[in-house]
Amino acid sequence: MKTAKASFILTLLFFFFFFFLFSSSSVESITEKKALHKPCKTLTLYFHDIIYDGTNANNATSAIVAAPAGANRTTLSGLMHFGDVVVFDDPITMDNNLHSPAVGRAQGLYLYDRKDVYTSWFGFSFVFNSTEHKGTLNFIGADPLMEKTRDVSVVGGTGDFFMSRGVATLTTDAFEGSVYFRLRVDIKLYECH
Amino acid sequence: MKTAKASFILTLLFFFFFFFLFSSSSVESITEKKALHKPCKTLTLYFHDIIYDGTNANNATSAIVAAPAGANRTTLSGLMHFGDVVVFDDPITMDNNLHSPAVGRAQGLYLYDRKDVYTSWFGFSFVFNSTEHKGTLNFIGADPLMEKTRDVSVVGGTGDFFMSRGVATLTTDAFEGSVYFRLRVDIKLYECH
Amino acid sequence: MKTAKASFILTLLFFFFFFFLFSSSSVESITEKKALHKPCKTLTLYFHDIIYDGTNANNATSAIVAAPAGANRTTLSGLMHFGDVVVFDDPITMDNNLHSPAVGRAQGLYLYDRKDVYTSWFGFSFVFNSTEHKGTLNFIGADPLMEKTRDVSVVGGTGDFFMSRGVATLTTDAFEGSVYFRLRVDIKLYECH
Repeated sequence: MKTAKASFILTLLFFFFFFFLFSSSSVESITEKKALHKPCKTLTLYFHDIIYDGTNANNATSAIVAAPAGANRTTLSGLMHFGDVVVFDDPITMDNNLHSPAVGRAQGLYLYDRKDVYTSWFGFSFVFNSTEHKGTLNFIGADPLMEKTRDVSVVGGTGDFFMSRGVATLTTDAFEGSVYFRLRVDIKLYECH
Repeated sequence: MKTAKASFILTLLFFFFFFFLFSSSSVESITEKKALHKPCKTLTLYFHDIIYDGTNANNATSAIVAAPAGANRTTLSGLMHFGDVVVFDDPITMDNNLHSPAVGRAQGLYLYDRKDVYTSWFGFSFVFNSTEHKGTLNFIGADPLMEKTRDVSVVGGTGDFFMSRGVATLTTDAFEGSVYFRLRVDIKLYECH
Repeated sequence: MKTAKASFILTLLFFFFFFFLFSSSSVESITEKKALHKPCKTLTLYFHDIIYDGTNANNATSAIVAAPAGANRTTLSGLMHFGDVVVFDDPITMDNNLHSPAVGRAQGLYLYDRKDVYTSWFGFSFVFNSTEHKGTLNFIGADPLMEKTRDVSVVGGTGDFFMSRGVATLTTDAFEGSVYFRLRVDIKLYECH
């Protein structure tokens, strides 16, 4: 009978112990840490950039707007295009076809920033406006474009992507001279809400 | 014997209670999700942008610093200002009056990036220096300014806003030609520390 | 009496089960909240910026690429350099010696944005490529450079710095006229994964 009583008291103490623990909500971090190794959402998209070269105003989706002294703004500068800043509004498609219906626009800027090898840097947003997705994702990061894949950060989101964070892997899917390129973007979100 | 039975039942109930709690491990995401639907801090502020037009050097708070080939930098370019990059240092006020005391400065850049409709993109910081707030908030996001409200991401903060994240809703509160505009910014922080 | 014993053993097992669960995990979330007051990783690095002045193409690591109307791009503009946008690819070193081996590159842009006092704004990445660190850290923030220390946000990371967030404190470690400056960067990450 003593064992039974002891067991009863132990159970009660135990109950209150965990009740307090939980009411302060501390389980949380277990799943959160695990969650970071498995994305809560993945998306693969393509965007298409056609640089204004002085003659293609109708088709162009981007333009060189800044360059170092001595360079003009209708051709990318020498020295691996160092210092060129490009403003863009590129269509986003679900597959690698420029003529597929756009599910949104990639908007922002990129720049070239090395003298010895092609390297660029991006600050931009994906603005979704399709039946599947409404909202935006915001990106920032270096794009050492001679490497096969490059990772940039997804630093925030709005709408369907409210408060999202993650990593986006860029791959050059195609490029034609210095006028057209297509980037494949594999987005892995590790914070979804 | 009654106590023993009660204890046994209590233990079992207890076991199932926690078993469910853990197997779905959803306590976390529920509380986290709830927390995210209710901001931990809100702020409504205004900032005022006066673009340098070649004659208003004293009053101007911003200047066009980059534009596509063929455009000059004292008037916004054609084609919905596509490609114009503007650097700004704008006063932030608590109400919509340009002449109210500034509680900080909005600093950074914006650019216009569509040819068919006015759309811009922002990367900037709010630098607070008032009795109420010291520190900074950092923003990035698309601003499709023909829509009534537009959401950008609050991607970080320092000082009083240490490690903050959230969403800021932009509303065009006024604009006068292409020289002055005033944005209302409703900031909702969902991560505060 | 059998039931009582069974119940006692069950309770004990149960207790140890949860004890382990929590000792390995719930402490975590407590420390996570606390952790925000104690960085999970700190790094002190230096980066070196040599601005292209029209004559130093070989040594320059950055170039003025945009400026307001009336300013050229080989000398920083008047009015506290208001409106100058600089693209950079600067070596990162472990100590304050420009000639130390670079552990990575600081890449991105900065701009000057006040007329009455030197103030700048940064959007950039640290791209690490050393035996110690592979990956990137992405930064955004205001840099009121006349203050001794300035805080910018670490808004994301990739590779070794996967999903990192934190605060970086900038200090001007040296500057020589308007051609060379060196920034000391004290990085404190409060989210590591």
